[in-house]
Amino acid sequence: MENDNYQITFAKNKKILMSSIKIIKIGGNIIDNPAKLNQFLVDFGKLDGQKILIHGGGKIATEMAETLGIKAQMIDGKRVTDAETLKIVTMVYAGLINKNIVAQLQALQCNAIGLTGADANIISATKRKDEKVDWGFVGDIESVNVHDLKLFLNNGLIPVLCALTHDGNGNLLNTNADTIAASLASAMAADGNEVHSVYCFEKKGVLHDVNDDNSLIKTINQEKYVALKASGIVNKGMIPKLDNAFKSIAEGVKEVKICMAEDLSDFQNAGTTISK
Amino acid sequence: MENDNYQITFAKNKKILMSSIKIIKIGGNIIDNPAKLNQFLVDFGKLDGQKILIHGGGKIATEMAETLGIKAQMIDGKRVTDAETLKIVTMVYAGLINKNIVAQLQALQCNAIGLTGADANIISATKRKDEKVDWGFVGDIESVNVHDLKLFLNNGLIPVLCALTHDGNGNLLNTNADTIAASLASAMAADGNEVHSVYCFEKKGVLHDVNDDNSLIKTINQEKYVALKASGIVNKGMIPKLDNAFKSIAEGVKEVKICMAEDLSDFQNAGTTISK
Repeated sequence: MENDNYQITFAKNKKILMSSIKIIKIGGNIIDNPAKLNQFLVDFGKLDGQKILIHGGGKIATEMAETLGIKAQMIDGKRVTDAETLKIVTMVYAGLINKNIVAQLQALQCNAIGLTGADANIISATKRKDEKVDWGFVGDIESVNVHDLKLFLNNGLIPVLCALTHDGNGNLLNTNADTIAASLASAMAADGNEVHSVYCFEKKGVLHDVNDDNSLIKTINQEKYVALKASGIVNKGMIPKLDNAFKSIAEGVKEVKICMAEDLSDFQNAGTTISK
Repeated sequence: MENDNYQITFAKNKKILMSSIKIIKIGGNIIDNPAKLNQFLVDFGKLDGQKILIHGGGKIATEMAETLGIKAQMIDGKRVTDAETLKIVTMVYAGLINKNIVAQLQALQCNAIGLTGADANIISATKRKDEKVDWGFVGDIESVNVHDLKLFLNNGLIPVLCALTHDGNGNLLNTNADTIAASLASAMAADGNEVHSVYCFEKKGVLHDVNDDNSLIKTINQEKYVALKASGIVNKGMIPKLDNAFKSIAEGVKEVKICMAEDLSDFQNAGTTISK
């Protein structure tokens, strides 16, 4: 078994824990499937060393909004987070989903602690400013509190973050879970940690043919990425994911993987690896 | 300004922090009133030293259940927490209420961290066993994780707990907020800390005449309590509150106060004090 932590004694009675940290993000499709989610949490629980889980929202918030008769305001196909939508998102992401994941991980002897960006001021953000459109309570990340994340990790706690940040003025803000995962990874890397980012979704990784799981592209570097975009093989929702991934690598994250949630237990050998 | 922490050096390079901890509980009537809640949080933020906030649920969960068409199952006037009700409670208590309190405290420079009993395994419980009635997902507290609560407190974090615990098997459980406050107080006292418990509600304290705020009973000891119950002056909902309070005192809690939320900033001189 790999030992992920290296204790470096650099002064008498003072030790610094240099850590390898795994930052795993799961999307809504797993949240929406209790059996898949349970297996994923079993696999997550078994991963060695320090780790952080970041989860998206799934369909539950949308369904809840519909049931409560709150109409989605859409601009250019994107949802606006108005005050009522923020309430739903806070209930579903930070309450229902986050706390059930935490309770399930606890049952797997995984000492999880569920957090929004407001808790312990883990992620502060600013309300998105857009001259043309008011996106409502949407937050762009300003800073990540590495100090307290490491306090938790170094004391055996496993942070489980949902897609909410805060503005420091009392407002919670909706923030994309991929962006949260990438910001945490960069902040942890800048702090000198060896960071492995894993983005789990419903496909085997980045595919040549989106309908063929056997067409996995095992590695993508910057040069190949330009070609894949030019040829249209990589398009739509995969572009922001890969942009995020290359940004992480540029900012010192050791490894970025995009893989299927079911492959988490062997993620080193699965999915698409992003490299310089 | 009072200094609440005493550092005792008992061995070379090793210090133990002996602390005075304030455990403050607020009820639903404050949660339901945004202006009152805001003022309460301002006052809470200003309290010196280590502190923990425990909050009840208010009417929001009941209203949400009604809006969603979930009928309350009642037995002997008590609500049964069925699976659907637990979902609502998890969304409202752990999501909407807890995270908004945390965001508001953060805006007041109060480094709050919102928790259920599942987070960091802070409070484990067992599903209530009652031969006659199935109360559903209701938890009786088994143990309090003082170690991690102190980890948070000693690192400047302020735990904000909602009325949810967990059974260690993946289930969240609904647990009375007064009971959570009392269990935390006893556990912290047993750990050698000086604990001050404050139960905030809508009255000035325990009153001779429930309709007259000038009829405050300033102190109640065991002997007086027996007489007050016998005369019917103390009855109904006040009895479990006072039973809890006397249990805390018997278990080593230094002081228990029952007072009005508006009097928190001067709680030492307000409300009813419970003593042996």
